[in-house]
Amino acid sequence: MGDPSGIGPEIIAGAWEQLQAIPDCQCIVYGHPEVMRRAAALRKTPESRLNAKIDCVTCCGDDVLEVPPGTIDPRAGRAAYSAIVQAIDDAQRGAVDAIVTAPIHKIALHRAGHHYPGHTEIFAERCGVENYAMMLYLGVGENIANQHGLAVVHVTLHTAMKTIFEQITTESVLAKIRLADGFMRRIIGDGRQQTADSSRGGRASFDKDSSAVCRLPSAILPRIGVCSLNPHAGEEGLFGDEEIHIIQPAIERAIAEGLQICGPQPADTIMLDARSGKYDAIVAMFHDQGHIALKLLGMYRAVNITLGLPIIRTSVAHGTAFDKAWQGIADPGSLLEAVRVAVKLCR
Amino acid sequence: MGDPSGIGPEIIAGAWEQLQAIPDCQCIVYGHPEVMRRAAALRKTPESRLNAKIDCVTCCGDDVLEVPPGTIDPRAGRAAYSAIVQAIDDAQRGAVDAIVTAPIHKIALHRAGHHYPGHTEIFAERCGVENYAMMLYLGVGENIANQHGLAVVHVTLHTAMKTIFEQITTESVLAKIRLADGFMRRIIGDGRQQTADSSRGGRASFDKDSSAVCRLPSAILPRIGVCSLNPHAGEEGLFGDEEIHIIQPAIERAIAEGLQICGPQPADTIMLDARSGKYDAIVAMFHDQGHIALKLLGMYRAVNITLGLPIIRTSVAHGTAFDKAWQGIADPGSLLEAVRVAVKLCR
Repeated sequence: MGDPSGIGPEIIAGAWEQLQAIPDCQCIVYGHPEVMRRAAALRKTPESRLNAKIDCVTCCGDDVLEVPPGTIDPRAGRAAYSAIVQAIDDAQRGAVDAIVTAPIHKIALHRAGHHYPGHTEIFAERCGVENYAMMLYLGVGENIANQHGLAVVHVTLHTAMKTIFEQITTESVLAKIRLADGFMRRIIGDGRQQTADSSRGGRASFDKDSSAVCRLPSAILPRIGVCSLNPHAGEEGLFGDEEIHIIQPAIERAIAEGLQICGPQPADTIMLDARSGKYDAIVAMFHDQGHIALKLLGMYRAVNITLGLPIIRTSVAHGTAFDKAWQGIADPGSLLEAVRVAVKLCR
Repeated sequence: MGDPSGIGPEIIAGAWEQLQAIPDCQCIVYGHPEVMRRAAALRKTPESRLNAKIDCVTCCGDDVLEVPPGTIDPRAGRAAYSAIVQAIDDAQRGAVDAIVTAPIHKIALHRAGHHYPGHTEIFAERCGVENYAMMLYLGVGENIANQHGLAVVHVTLHTAMKTIFEQITTESVLAKIRLADGFMRRIIGDGRQQTADSSRGGRASFDKDSSAVCRLPSAILPRIGVCSLNPHAGEEGLFGDEEIHIIQPAIERAIAEGLQICGPQPADTIMLDARSGKYDAIVAMFHDQGHIALKLLGMYRAVNITLGLPIIRTSVAHGTAFDKAWQGIADPGSLLEAVRVAVKLCR
């Protein structure tokens, strides 16, 4: 359910009927049933009908019912946290096949005594996983010409900008390239993986206008674009040399592994190319590079996927939106997409 | 003309007839007339007719005619440089009212022995100016709901990401806020400046969901949005504290000066608000924040404006695009807009 004070409950209620129509998918809400009843009433859908249908697993006490809408409250943070951990435990013992998360508010979580930067770190800790990554995915639709949609992986994410430089290494960039490639192979389709070897040996060519290394010879493997860190990809070292010493070597190693890849390219132009369908996945160096583009391209369709966990977890890509919560106006599009992608990954 | 090897000549030729239709505007090309003749031929417009019309000031030798299309060449860099300095000198002595620049390639400029990061620094040095700023402007049109268009000013721009932290200070942020405000007052209209005082005393309110300070009470003054540096505006200090210690104080000072302003807001959400018309101007902390959004919102309409010079200078907002140069496919939209904005500023 996410933070009960945010838009989580109402997007679940708003999406509920469409969720029922997804084949091979049965949804259960982890959260307080009275909160869901209020959210369903808010959506102006016949209350009794939805009451009968929204199955809830109650994970918190009744104090959550006193939390005012759109506020940071430790009771809401506590309720969100208990729903997450109970869902994780149920997924780990096989009672549920996948978890889809609604937005939580990090400060509310902190005030409830749970000091995590976000959902993902709770999942990682509870599953005992150290290597994991968050990926954003935008399915085919308005603004995305590519039939397989567009995945965006960040090398650094919820961290102060001052700290990104120590985190951007050839190893970390290469790890994210491999993640992006692996995920998009699952989306593009199982039958195509085997062709990876046949495309080895494609040429690596240097662009005239940049220091980018390119190898995009085939339409079968995922086509991955890698952002530069610096403006204009560092303009051949004039505005920073991380492109030359860190990112380019990662791309060359990915090419040696047979991946289809192009970069480092300036983030502003790569996003235009992504929109026009040149890439299946983009590797961004920091939060804003990926998020500014994704939000403009389709904020309410974007899905957040955690890779590297022993369980399947997808999430909405937006926040609690306290400023518009409990007004019945929140768009359930991202939640619907998150469930659809989770079902796809289960298959 | 910009770099003769890039798309500069063909966008000028492509825009030429529409440029003639702009009231109170007479265009002259600073560049080699034979390059313009070839570019006009490329656009498949009746050659003789355009020949008669494109007035050129020859600023370079004939060696530029041997430069192959789409390549970094010191001869092209030298030709671009001489055109710029001759135009600046002519503008300073009053022979031209404004300069509109086509794209140059910085490496070609460097190879010609001119070590500037870009156009703007040449203008500043030759005009003897130390305080200047680049602004990007997107006129009203597709993706921009605001009738006055959208201005974007960067606190840091063509610099390595590692160096932005020393450049982002309360003073530098405040200076860019004032620039954005002053420019948009000129765009919104002269008659409205005087109302600035009447809106003083508007309330400063804190958003529930963020550390943003907001004062947007009137629709008469430009409404300015300020980006955060860190993801999620630093999440109240969890991901960096520049919002609290640097950006917020700048916004509070701007409010005390009577400006209409809101921020620091996460750059990914502020750009959605800008698209929907909430802001007239955005102050971005670094290159990619502004450019990713601007390119997705209207790459070929964006105009680059240098503020703080004794002469008027606007520019296309895109690069030389060597990969598509001299194929007759380049879009002249940004050049046309750059001329229109220059004429507006002359008035």
